[in-house]
Amino acid sequence: MNRQELVQLIRDRKSYLCIGLDTDMQKIPKHLHSHPDPMFAFNKAIIDATQDLCVAYKINTAFYECQGIRGWESLQRTIEYIPKTVFTIADAKRGDIGNTSAYYAKTFYETYGFDSVTVAPYMGRDSVEPFLGFSDKFAIVLGLTSNAGSADFQLQPAGDGLLYEKVLRTCASWGTPDNMMFVVGATQADSVAAIRKIVPDHFLLVPGVGAQGGSLKDISEKGMNGDVGLLVNASRAVIYAGNDEKFAEDARAAAQALQAEMATYL
Amino acid sequence: MNRQELVQLIRDRKSYLCIGLDTDMQKIPKHLHSHPDPMFAFNKAIIDATQDLCVAYKINTAFYECQGIRGWESLQRTIEYIPKTVFTIADAKRGDIGNTSAYYAKTFYETYGFDSVTVAPYMGRDSVEPFLGFSDKFAIVLGLTSNAGSADFQLQPAGDGLLYEKVLRTCASWGTPDNMMFVVGATQADSVAAIRKIVPDHFLLVPGVGAQGGSLKDISEKGMNGDVGLLVNASRAVIYAGNDEKFAEDARAAAQALQAEMATYL
Repeated sequence: MNRQELVQLIRDRKSYLCIGLDTDMQKIPKHLHSHPDPMFAFNKAIIDATQDLCVAYKINTAFYECQGIRGWESLQRTIEYIPKTVFTIADAKRGDIGNTSAYYAKTFYETYGFDSVTVAPYMGRDSVEPFLGFSDKFAIVLGLTSNAGSADFQLQPAGDGLLYEKVLRTCASWGTPDNMMFVVGATQADSVAAIRKIVPDHFLLVPGVGAQGGSLKDISEKGMNGDVGLLVNASRAVIYAGNDEKFAEDARAAAQALQAEMATYL
Repeated sequence: MNRQELVQLIRDRKSYLCIGLDTDMQKIPKHLHSHPDPMFAFNKAIIDATQDLCVAYKINTAFYECQGIRGWESLQRTIEYIPKTVFTIADAKRGDIGNTSAYYAKTFYETYGFDSVTVAPYMGRDSVEPFLGFSDKFAIVLGLTSNAGSADFQLQPAGDGLLYEKVLRTCASWGTPDNMMFVVGATQADSVAAIRKIVPDHFLLVPGVGAQGGSLKDISEKGMNGDVGLLVNASRAVIYAGNDEKFAEDARAAAQALQAEMATYL
Protein backbone atom coordinates (compact mmCIF):
# COMPACT_ATOMS: atom_id res chain seq x y z
CA MET A 1 0.00 0.00 0.00
CA ASN A 2 1.36 3.45 -0.87
CA ARG A 3 1.06 6.70 1.07
CA GLN A 4 -1.77 8.07 -1.07
CA GLU A 5 -3.85 4.92 -0.61
CA LEU A 6 -3.25 5.02 3.14
CA VAL A 7 -4.38 8.66 3.34
CA GLN A 8 -7.52 7.81 1.34
CA LEU A 9 -8.26 4.86 3.62
CA ILE A 10 -8.01 7.12 6.66
CA ARG A 11 -10.37 9.68 5.06
CA ASP A 12 -12.86 6.98 4.04
CA ARG A 13 -12.97 5.30 7.44
CA LYS A 14 -12.60 8.46 9.53
CA SER A 15 -10.04 6.48 11.46
CA TYR A 16 -6.29 6.44 11.94
CA LEU A 17 -6.47 3.55 14.34
CA CYS A 18 -3.85 0.83 14.23
CA ILE A 19 -4.66 -2.26 16.27
CA GLY A 20 -1.66 -4.00 17.79
CA LEU A 21 -1.90 -7.78 17.74
CA ASP A 22 0.32 -8.28 20.82
CA THR A 23 -1.22 -11.68 21.18
CA ASP A 24 -0.11 -13.27 24.41
CA MET A 25 -0.84 -16.89 25.24
CA GLN A 26 -1.02 -15.85 28.91
CA LYS A 27 -3.77 -13.30 28.24
CA ILE A 28 -6.08 -14.71 25.59
CA PRO A 29 -9.40 -16.16 26.80
CA LYS A 30 -9.06 -19.66 28.20
CA HIS A 31 -11.66 -21.20 25.91
CA LEU A 32 -9.33 -20.59 22.92
CA HIS A 33 -6.57 -22.78 24.32
CA SER A 34 -8.24 -25.91 22.92
CA HIS A 35 -8.06 -24.49 19.38
CA PRO A 36 -5.27 -26.03 17.24
CA ASP A 37 -3.78 -22.53 16.79
CA PRO A 38 -5.02 -20.41 19.71
CA MET A 39 -3.06 -17.28 18.72
CA PHE A 40 -4.50 -17.29 15.22
CA ALA A 41 -8.00 -18.09 16.50
CA PHE A 42 -7.77 -15.05 18.76
CA ASN A 43 -6.39 -12.82 15.99
CA LYS A 44 -9.00 -13.98 13.48
CA ALA A 45 -11.81 -13.09 15.88
CA ILE A 46 -10.25 -9.68 16.60
CA ILE A 47 -9.75 -8.96 12.88
CA ASP A 48 -13.30 -10.03 12.02
CA ALA A 49 -14.65 -7.77 14.75
CA THR A 50 -12.53 -4.67 14.06
CA GLN A 51 -11.42 -4.53 10.42
CA ASP A 52 -13.89 -1.83 9.38
CA LEU A 53 -12.86 0.45 12.27
CA CYS A 54 -9.09 0.52 11.85
CA VAL A 55 -6.72 1.28 8.99
CA ALA A 56 -3.78 -0.84 10.12
CA TYR A 57 -2.81 -3.92 12.09
CA LYS A 58 0.54 -4.11 13.82
CA ILE A 59 1.99 -7.50 14.66
CA ASN A 60 4.51 -7.39 17.51
CA THR A 61 6.79 -10.22 16.44
CA ALA A 62 8.20 -10.92 19.93
CA PHE A 63 4.91 -12.43 21.09
CA TYR A 64 5.03 -14.90 18.21
CA GLU A 65 8.78 -15.56 18.23
CA CYS A 66 8.72 -16.66 21.86
CA GLN A 67 6.39 -19.52 20.91
CA GLY A 68 9.02 -20.91 18.55
CA ILE A 69 8.07 -22.24 15.14
CA ARG A 70 4.37 -22.58 15.95
CA GLY A 71 4.41 -18.88 16.80
CA TRP A 72 5.70 -18.07 13.32
CA GLU A 73 2.95 -20.28 11.91
CA SER A 74 0.40 -18.22 13.85
CA LEU A 75 2.04 -15.03 12.55
CA GLN A 76 1.92 -16.26 8.98
CA ARG A 77 -1.74 -17.31 9.19
CA THR A 78 -2.55 -13.91 10.69
CA ILE A 79 -0.80 -11.81 8.04
CA GLU A 80 -2.42 -13.92 5.33
CA TYR A 81 -5.83 -13.40 6.92
CA ILE A 82 -5.63 -9.60 7.24
CA PRO A 83 -7.50 -8.00 4.31
CA LYS A 84 -5.15 -6.44 1.73
CA THR A 85 -7.19 -3.23 2.03
CA VAL A 86 -5.66 -2.59 5.47
CA PHE A 87 -2.07 -1.43 6.11
CA THR A 88 0.15 -3.96 7.89
CA ILE A 89 3.11 -3.36 10.19
CA ALA A 90 5.69 -5.88 11.37
CA ASP A 91 6.73 -4.41 14.69
CA ALA A 92 10.06 -6.20 14.70
CA LYS A 93 12.56 -3.39 15.39
CA ARG A 94 15.24 -4.89 13.16
CA GLY A 95 18.50 -3.30 11.98
CA ASP A 96 21.98 -4.63 11.19
CA ILE A 97 24.83 -4.14 8.73
CA GLY A 98 23.75 -3.71 5.12
CA ASN A 99 23.68 -7.27 3.81
CA THR A 100 21.89 -8.46 6.95
CA SER A 101 19.33 -5.64 6.94
CA ALA A 102 18.61 -6.55 3.31
CA TYR A 103 17.59 -10.02 4.52
CA TYR A 104 15.36 -8.54 7.22
CA ALA A 105 13.68 -6.33 4.61
CA LYS A 106 13.12 -9.38 2.41
CA THR A 107 11.75 -11.29 5.42
CA PHE A 108 9.00 -8.85 6.26
CA TYR A 109 8.20 -7.29 2.88
CA GLU A 110 8.46 -10.39 0.71
CA THR A 111 8.45 -13.62 2.74
CA TYR A 112 5.47 -12.48 4.84
CA GLY A 113 4.16 -9.59 2.69
CA PHE A 114 3.91 -6.80 5.27
CA ASP A 115 3.55 -3.21 4.07
CA SER A 116 6.07 -1.97 6.62
CA VAL A 117 8.53 -2.92 9.34
CA THR A 118 9.86 -1.03 12.35
CA VAL A 119 13.61 -0.35 12.21
CA ALA A 120 16.16 0.52 14.92
CA PRO A 121 18.48 3.36 13.82
CA TYR A 122 21.56 2.91 16.06
CA MET A 123 23.71 1.30 13.34
CA GLY A 124 23.19 4.16 10.90
CA ARG A 125 22.63 4.63 7.20
CA ASP A 126 23.62 1.26 5.76
CA SER A 127 21.43 -0.45 8.36
CA VAL A 128 18.33 1.56 7.37
CA GLU A 129 18.69 2.00 3.59
CA PRO A 130 18.05 -1.66 2.68
CA PHE A 131 14.51 -1.19 4.01
CA LEU A 132 13.85 1.73 1.62
CA GLY A 133 14.31 0.19 -1.82
CA PHE A 134 10.93 -1.56 -2.14
CA SER A 135 7.95 -0.14 -3.99
CA ASP A 136 5.02 0.82 -1.71
CA LYS A 137 6.79 -0.43 1.43
CA PHE A 138 7.78 1.61 4.48
CA ALA A 139 10.61 1.52 7.00
CA ILE A 140 9.19 2.85 10.27
CA VAL A 141 12.26 4.13 12.10
CA LEU A 142 12.36 4.49 15.90
CA GLY A 143 12.37 8.20 16.71
CA LEU A 144 11.19 8.99 20.23
CA THR A 145 9.73 5.92 21.87
CA SER A 146 6.97 5.71 24.47
CA ASN A 147 8.93 4.00 27.25
CA ALA A 148 10.79 5.41 30.25
CA GLY A 149 14.09 4.27 28.69
CA SER A 150 13.68 6.92 25.97
CA ALA A 151 15.30 9.26 28.51
CA ASP A 152 18.54 7.26 28.59
CA PHE A 153 19.77 8.02 25.06
CA GLN A 154 17.04 9.47 22.84
CA LEU A 155 16.46 12.51 25.05
CA GLN A 156 20.14 13.15 25.76
CA PRO A 157 22.03 16.05 24.18
CA ALA A 158 23.74 15.16 20.89
CA GLY A 159 25.38 17.97 18.93
CA ASP A 160 23.10 21.00 18.83
CA GLY A 161 19.93 19.19 19.88
CA LEU A 162 18.75 15.92 21.36
CA LEU A 163 19.70 12.52 19.99
CA TYR A 164 16.20 11.67 18.75
CA GLU A 165 16.08 14.97 16.84
CA LYS A 166 19.36 14.10 15.16
CA VAL A 167 18.02 10.64 14.35
CA LEU A 168 14.83 12.06 12.81
CA ARG A 169 16.70 14.69 10.78
CA THR A 170 19.41 12.31 9.56
CA CYS A 171 17.15 9.36 8.76
CA ALA A 172 14.66 11.62 6.96
CA SER A 173 17.50 12.61 4.61
CA TRP A 174 17.93 8.98 3.53
CA GLY A 175 14.35 8.44 2.41
CA THR A 176 11.09 10.23 1.72
CA PRO A 177 7.62 10.31 3.28
CA ASP A 178 6.74 7.71 0.64
CA ASN A 179 9.07 5.05 2.04
CA MET A 180 9.70 6.09 5.64
CA MET A 181 7.68 6.76 8.79
CA PHE A 182 8.79 7.33 12.39
CA VAL A 183 7.78 5.86 15.73
CA VAL A 184 6.83 8.58 18.23
CA GLY A 185 5.28 7.51 21.52
CA ALA A 186 1.95 9.01 22.59
CA THR A 187 3.54 9.58 26.00
CA GLN A 188 5.85 12.11 24.26
CA ALA A 189 3.11 14.52 23.18
CA ASP A 190 5.04 17.48 24.60
CA SER A 191 7.78 16.88 22.03
CA VAL A 192 5.48 16.50 19.04
CA ALA A 193 5.58 20.16 18.01
CA ALA A 194 9.39 19.94 17.81
CA ILE A 195 9.09 16.66 15.92
CA ARG A 196 6.71 18.14 13.35
CA LYS A 197 9.23 20.93 12.67
CA ILE A 198 11.79 18.27 11.68
CA VAL A 199 9.50 15.85 9.85
CA PRO A 200 6.39 17.81 8.83
CA ASP A 201 5.27 15.38 6.13
CA HIS A 202 6.09 11.90 7.42
CA PHE A 203 3.55 9.59 8.94
CA LEU A 204 4.12 8.95 12.63
CA LEU A 205 3.32 5.56 14.14
CA VAL A 206 2.17 6.38 17.65
CA PRO A 207 2.07 3.64 20.26
CA GLY A 208 1.44 4.28 23.91
CA VAL A 209 -2.26 5.23 24.00
CA GLY A 210 -4.08 3.15 26.61
CA ALA A 211 -2.04 0.84 28.81
CA GLN A 212 1.03 3.10 28.59
CA GLY A 213 -0.94 6.25 29.48
CA GLY A 214 -0.64 8.46 26.37
CA SER A 215 -3.55 10.75 25.41
CA LEU A 216 -5.22 10.33 22.01
CA LYS A 217 -6.46 13.92 22.16
CA ASP A 218 -3.02 15.39 22.83
CA ILE A 219 -1.20 13.45 20.16
CA SER A 220 -3.95 14.10 17.60
CA GLU A 221 -4.04 17.85 18.19
CA LYS A 222 -0.29 18.23 18.16
CA GLY A 223 0.77 15.62 15.62
CA MET A 224 -1.70 15.77 12.74
CA ASN A 225 -0.56 17.19 9.40
CA GLY A 226 -2.41 17.98 6.15
CA ASP A 227 -2.54 14.29 5.22
CA VAL A 228 -3.44 13.31 8.80
CA GLY A 229 0.03 11.75 9.10
CA LEU A 230 -0.78 9.65 12.16
CA LEU A 231 -1.31 5.98 12.81
CA VAL A 232 -2.24 5.72 16.47
CA ASN A 233 -1.78 2.23 17.84
CA ALA A 234 -3.74 0.59 20.62
CA SER A 235 -2.88 -2.95 21.58
CA ARG A 236 -3.84 -4.15 25.05
CA ALA A 237 -6.60 -1.53 25.43
CA VAL A 238 -8.44 -3.05 22.45
CA ILE A 239 -7.56 -6.71 22.20
CA TYR A 240 -7.88 -7.42 25.93
CA ALA A 241 -10.90 -5.17 26.50
CA GLY A 242 -12.71 -8.38 27.42
CA ASN A 243 -11.53 -11.78 28.48
CA ASP A 244 -14.43 -14.18 28.04
CA GLU A 245 -16.54 -15.68 25.23
CA LYS A 246 -17.50 -12.20 24.02
CA PHE A 247 -13.93 -10.83 23.91
CA ALA A 248 -14.24 -9.91 20.23
CA GLU A 249 -17.37 -7.85 20.84
CA ASP A 250 -15.58 -6.08 23.69
CA ALA A 251 -12.61 -5.42 21.42
CA ARG A 252 -14.95 -3.98 18.82
CA ALA A 253 -16.52 -1.67 21.37
CA ALA A 254 -13.08 -0.45 22.47
CA ALA A 255 -11.98 0.09 18.86
CA GLN A 256 -15.25 1.85 18.07
CA ALA A 257 -14.77 4.28 20.95
CA LEU A 258 -11.28 5.15 19.67
CA GLN A 259 -12.51 5.49 16.07
CA ALA A 260 -15.40 7.73 17.14
CA GLU A 261 -13.00 9.97 19.04
CA MET A 262 -10.65 10.05 16.04
CA ALA A 263 -13.53 11.08 13.75
CA THR A 264 -14.00 14.21 15.87
CA TYR A 265 -10.34 15.20 15.35
CA LEU A 266 -10.42 14.70 11.56
CA MET B 1 27.53 -21.12 30.06
CA ASN B 2 28.94 -18.62 32.56
CA ARG B 3 31.87 -16.23 32.20
CA GLN B 4 34.32 -18.43 34.12
CA GLU B 5 33.52 -21.45 31.94
CA LEU B 6 33.94 -19.36 28.81
CA VAL B 7 37.34 -18.10 29.95
CA GLN B 8 38.43 -21.67 30.74
CA LEU B 9 37.26 -22.84 27.31
CA ILE B 10 39.33 -20.12 25.66
CA ARG B 11 42.41 -21.11 27.67
CA ASP B 12 41.93 -24.80 26.93
CA ARG B 13 41.47 -24.35 23.18
CA LYS B 14 43.91 -21.46 22.77
CA SER B 15 41.17 -19.86 20.76
CA TYR B 16 38.73 -16.98 21.07
CA LEU B 17 37.25 -17.67 17.67
CA CYS B 18 33.52 -17.32 17.12
CA ILE B 19 32.26 -18.71 13.83
CA GLY B 20 29.31 -16.86 12.34
CA LEU B 21 26.74 -19.11 10.72
CA ASP B 22 25.52 -16.48 8.23
CA THR B 23 24.18 -19.29 6.16
CA ASP B 24 22.94 -17.97 2.85
CA MET B 25 20.97 -20.12 0.40
CA GLN B 26 22.58 -18.11 -2.42
CA LYS B 27 26.10 -18.99 -1.29
CA ILE B 28 26.11 -22.54 0.00
CA PRO B 29 27.52 -25.20 -2.36
CA LYS B 30 25.04 -26.25 -5.03
CA HIS B 31 25.22 -29.96 -4.17
CA LEU B 32 23.52 -29.23 -0.83
CA HIS B 33 20.38 -27.86 -2.46
CA SER B 34 18.97 -31.36 -2.90
CA HIS B 35 19.16 -31.98 0.88
CA PRO B 36 15.77 -31.74 2.66
CA ASP B 37 17.20 -28.96 4.85
CA PRO B 38 20.14 -27.41 2.94
CA MET B 39 20.89 -24.73 5.54
CA PHE B 40 21.14 -27.29 8.34
CA ALA B 41 23.15 -29.69 6.17
CA PHE B 42 25.63 -26.88 5.54
CA ASN B 43 25.78 -25.86 9.21
CA LYS B 44 26.18 -29.44 10.40
CA ALA B 45 29.18 -29.94 8.10
CA ILE B 46 30.72 -26.64 9.23
CA ILE B 47 30.16 -27.48 12.92
CA ASP B 48 31.57 -30.99 12.51
CA ALA B 49 34.66 -29.56 10.81
CA THR B 50 35.34 -26.64 13.18
CA GLN B 51 33.96 -27.32 16.65
CA ASP B 52 37.34 -28.06 18.23
CA LEU B 53 38.87 -24.83 16.88
CA CYS B 54 36.33 -22.28 18.04
CA VAL B 55 34.73 -21.40 21.36
CA ALA B 56 31.47 -19.96 20.03
CA TYR B 57 29.00 -20.07 17.17
CA LYS B 58 26.97 -17.03 16.23
CA ILE B 59 23.73 -17.49 14.34
CA ASN B 60 22.71 -14.41 12.38
CA THR B 61 18.94 -14.77 12.55
CA ALA B 62 18.20 -12.65 9.45
CA PHE B 63 19.54 -15.33 7.13
CA TYR B 64 17.11 -17.84 8.63
CA GLU B 65 14.14 -15.51 9.08
CA CYS B 66 14.11 -14.59 5.40
CA GLN B 67 13.42 -18.24 4.55
CA GLY B 68 10.19 -18.12 6.54
CA ILE B 69 9.19 -21.00 8.78
CA ARG B 70 11.57 -23.51 7.19
CA GLY B 71 14.39 -21.08 8.03
CA TRP B 72 13.40 -21.20 11.71
CA GLU B 73 13.37 -24.99 11.45
CA SER B 74 16.95 -24.86 10.13
CA LEU B 75 17.88 -22.51 12.97
CA GLN B 76 16.35 -24.80 15.56
CA ARG B 77 18.08 -27.90 14.19
CA THR B 78 21.36 -25.97 14.17
CA ILE B 79 21.18 -24.70 17.75
CA GLU B 80 20.20 -28.19 18.92
CA TYR B 81 23.18 -29.67 17.05
CA ILE B 82 25.83 -27.31 18.43
CA PRO B 83 27.65 -29.03 21.33
CA LYS B 84 26.68 -27.61 24.74
CA THR B 85 30.41 -27.18 25.45
CA VAL B 86 30.54 -24.26 23.01
CA PHE B 87 29.10 -20.77 23.66
CA THR B 88 26.16 -19.79 21.45
CA ILE B 89 25.08 -16.35 20.28
CA ALA B 90 21.78 -15.38 18.67
CA ASP B 91 22.81 -12.39 16.58
CA ALA B 92 19.31 -10.98 16.47
CA LYS B 93 19.79 -7.35 17.55
CA ARG B 94 16.48 -7.19 19.39
CA GLY B 95 15.23 -4.49 21.77
CA ASP B 96 11.79 -3.06 22.59
CA ILE B 97 9.76 -1.79 25.54
CA GLY B 98 10.06 -3.90 28.68
CA ASN B 99 7.29 -6.46 28.31
CA THR B 100 8.25 -7.04 24.67
CA SER B 101 11.99 -7.35 25.39
CA ALA B 102 11.08 -9.92 28.03
CA TYR B 103 9.51 -12.02 25.28
CA TYR B 104 12.59 -11.66 23.10
CA ALA B 105 14.78 -12.78 26.01
CA LYS B 106 12.53 -15.78 26.53
CA THR B 107 12.67 -16.53 22.79
CA PHE B 108 16.42 -16.81 22.54
CA TYR B 109 17.40 -17.99 26.03
CA GLU B 110 14.55 -20.42 26.67
CA THR B 111 12.66 -21.33 23.50
CA TYR B 112 15.88 -21.93 21.55
CA GLY B 113 18.41 -22.22 24.40
CA PHE B 114 21.08 -19.77 23.28
CA ASP B 115 23.68 -18.57 25.81
CA SER B 116 23.39 -14.99 24.59
CA VAL B 117 21.61 -12.58 22.28
CA THR B 118 22.69 -9.30 20.70
CA VAL B 119 20.65 -6.30 21.87
CA ALA B 120 20.13 -2.83 20.36
CA PRO B 121 20.38 -0.06 23.00
CA TYR B 122 18.46 2.85 21.44
CA MET B 123 15.33 2.34 23.59
CA GLY B 124 17.25 2.49 26.87
CA ARG B 125 17.21 0.76 30.21
CA ASP B 126 13.85 -0.99 30.23
CA SER B 127 14.59 -2.39 26.76
CA VAL B 128 17.91 -3.94 27.89
CA GLU B 129 17.23 -5.06 31.48
CA PRO B 130 14.85 -7.92 30.60
CA PHE B 131 17.82 -9.63 28.93
CA LEU B 132 19.86 -9.53 32.15
CA GLY B 133 17.78 -11.52 34.59
CA PHE B 134 18.71 -15.04 33.47
CA SER B 135 21.34 -17.20 35.11
CA ASP B 136 24.44 -17.80 32.92
CA LYS B 137 22.99 -15.86 29.97
CA PHE B 138 24.40 -12.73 28.36
CA ALA B 139 22.96 -9.66 26.66
CA ILE B 140 25.51 -8.54 24.07
CA VAL B 141 24.74 -4.86 23.61
CA LEU B 142 25.69 -2.96 20.45
CA GLY B 143 28.52 -0.58 21.31
CA LEU B 144 30.57 0.52 18.33
CA THR B 145 29.66 -1.51 15.26
CA SER B 146 31.87 -2.48 12.33
CA ASN B 147 29.89 -0.83 9.55
CA ALA B 148 30.26 2.57 7.87
CA GLY B 149 26.94 3.65 9.41
CA SER B 150 28.56 3.64 12.86
CA ALA B 151 29.67 7.18 11.96
CA ASP B 152 26.09 8.44 11.68
CA PHE B 153 25.12 8.23 15.36
CA GLN B 154 27.54 6.10 17.40
CA LEU B 155 30.56 8.30 16.64
CA GLN B 156 28.69 11.59 17.02
CA PRO B 157 29.22 13.87 20.04
CA ALA B 158 26.79 13.20 22.89
CA GLY B 159 27.31 15.05 26.15
CA ASP B 160 30.98 15.06 27.09
CA GLY B 161 32.01 12.23 24.76
CA LEU B 162 30.74 10.22 21.82
CA LEU B 163 27.39 8.46 21.75
CA TYR B 164 28.87 4.95 21.78
CA GLU B 165 30.94 5.85 24.85
CA LYS B 166 27.80 7.01 26.61
CA VAL B 167 26.04 3.80 25.58
CA LEU B 168 28.87 1.63 26.92
CA ARG B 169 29.11 3.55 30.20
CA THR B 170 25.36 3.66 30.77
CA CYS B 171 24.58 0.08 29.79
CA ALA B 172 27.51 -1.25 31.84
CA SER B 173 25.87 0.32 34.90
CA TRP B 174 22.75 -1.81 34.37
CA GLY B 175 24.51 -5.16 34.42
CA THR B 176 27.84 -6.82 35.15
CA PRO B 177 30.53 -8.58 33.12
CA ASP B 178 28.72 -11.78 34.15
CA ASN B 179 25.53 -10.96 32.24
CA MET B 180 26.57 -8.41 29.63
CA MET B 181 29.03 -8.13 26.76
CA PHE B 182 29.42 -5.48 24.05
CA VAL B 183 29.69 -5.57 20.27
CA VAL B 184 32.77 -3.70 19.04
CA GLY B 185 33.70 -3.97 15.37
CA ALA B 186 37.20 -5.09 14.41
CA THR B 187 37.23 -2.16 11.98
CA GLN B 188 37.16 0.13 15.04
CA ALA B 189 40.51 -0.98 16.49
CA ASP B 190 41.63 2.65 16.89
CA SER B 191 38.86 3.16 19.45
CA VAL B 192 39.52 0.01 21.46
CA ALA B 193 41.89 1.65 23.95
CA ALA B 194 39.16 4.18 24.78
CA ILE B 195 36.61 1.37 25.01
CA ARG B 196 38.76 -0.63 27.42
CA LYS B 197 38.94 2.41 29.73
CA ILE B 198 35.13 2.38 29.97
CA VAL B 199 34.55 -1.39 30.08
CA PRO B 200 37.83 -3.00 31.19
CA ASP B 201 36.30 -6.29 32.31
CA HIS B 202 33.50 -7.05 29.85
CA PHE B 203 33.84 -9.48 27.01
CA LEU B 204 33.73 -7.85 23.59
CA LEU B 205 32.13 -9.64 20.66
CA VAL B 206 34.18 -8.50 17.69
CA PRO B 207 32.79 -8.95 14.18
CA GLY B 208 34.41 -7.49 11.10
CA VAL B 209 37.57 -9.57 10.71
CA GLY B 210 37.81 -10.90 7.16
CA ALA B 211 35.22 -9.76 4.61
CA GLN B 212 34.75 -6.41 6.39
CA GLY B 213 38.50 -5.70 6.56
CA GLY B 214 39.28 -5.64 10.31
CA SER B 215 42.67 -6.88 11.57
CA LEU B 216 42.81 -9.76 14.06
CA LYS B 217 46.25 -8.61 15.21
CA ASP B 218 45.14 -5.04 15.94
CA ILE B 219 42.00 -5.97 17.83
CA SER B 220 43.80 -8.67 19.82
CA GLU B 221 46.69 -6.43 20.88
CA LYS B 222 44.43 -3.55 21.82
CA GLY B 223 41.33 -5.33 23.15
CA MET B 224 42.54 -8.24 25.26
CA ASN B 225 42.15 -8.09 29.05
CA GLY B 226 43.28 -10.37 31.88
CA ASP B 227 40.53 -12.88 31.09
CA VAL B 228 41.14 -12.53 27.33
CA GLY B 229 37.78 -10.76 27.10
CA LEU B 230 37.41 -11.17 23.35
CA LEU B 231 35.25 -13.29 21.09
CA VAL B 232 36.42 -12.54 17.57
CA ASN B 233 33.89 -13.52 14.96
CA ALA B 234 34.56 -14.63 11.41
CA SER B 235 31.61 -15.54 9.21
CA ARG B 236 32.09 -15.40 5.45
CA ALA B 237 35.89 -15.79 5.68
CA VAL B 238 35.43 -19.20 7.30
CA ILE B 239 32.16 -20.69 6.13
CA TYR B 240 32.61 -19.70 2.47
CA ALA B 241 36.36 -20.39 2.33
CA GLY B 242 35.46 -23.05 -0.22
CA ASN B 243 32.41 -23.60 -2.38
CA ASP B 244 32.55 -27.19 -3.62
CA GLU B 245 32.31 -30.72 -2.21
CA LYS B 246 35.21 -30.04 0.17
CA PHE B 247 33.80 -26.76 1.57
CA ALA B 248 33.93 -28.08 5.14
CA GLU B 249 37.64 -28.92 4.87
CA ASP B 250 38.27 -25.46 3.47
CA ALA B 251 36.31 -23.93 6.35
CA ARG B 252 38.38 -25.94 8.80
CA ALA B 253 41.61 -24.71 7.22
CA ALA B 254 40.41 -21.10 7.45
CA ALA B 255 39.35 -21.57 11.08
CA GLN B 256 42.63 -23.29 11.90
CA ALA B 257 44.63 -20.38 10.49
CA LEU B 258 42.67 -17.96 12.69
CA GLN B 259 43.01 -20.20 15.76
CA ALA B 260 46.76 -20.59 15.21
CA GLU B 261 47.15 -16.82 14.97
CA MET B 262 45.04 -16.39 18.12
CA ALA B 263 47.24 -18.87 19.99
CA THR B 264 50.22 -16.57 19.39
CA TYR B 265 48.40 -13.64 21.01
CA LEU B 266 47.33 -15.59 24.10
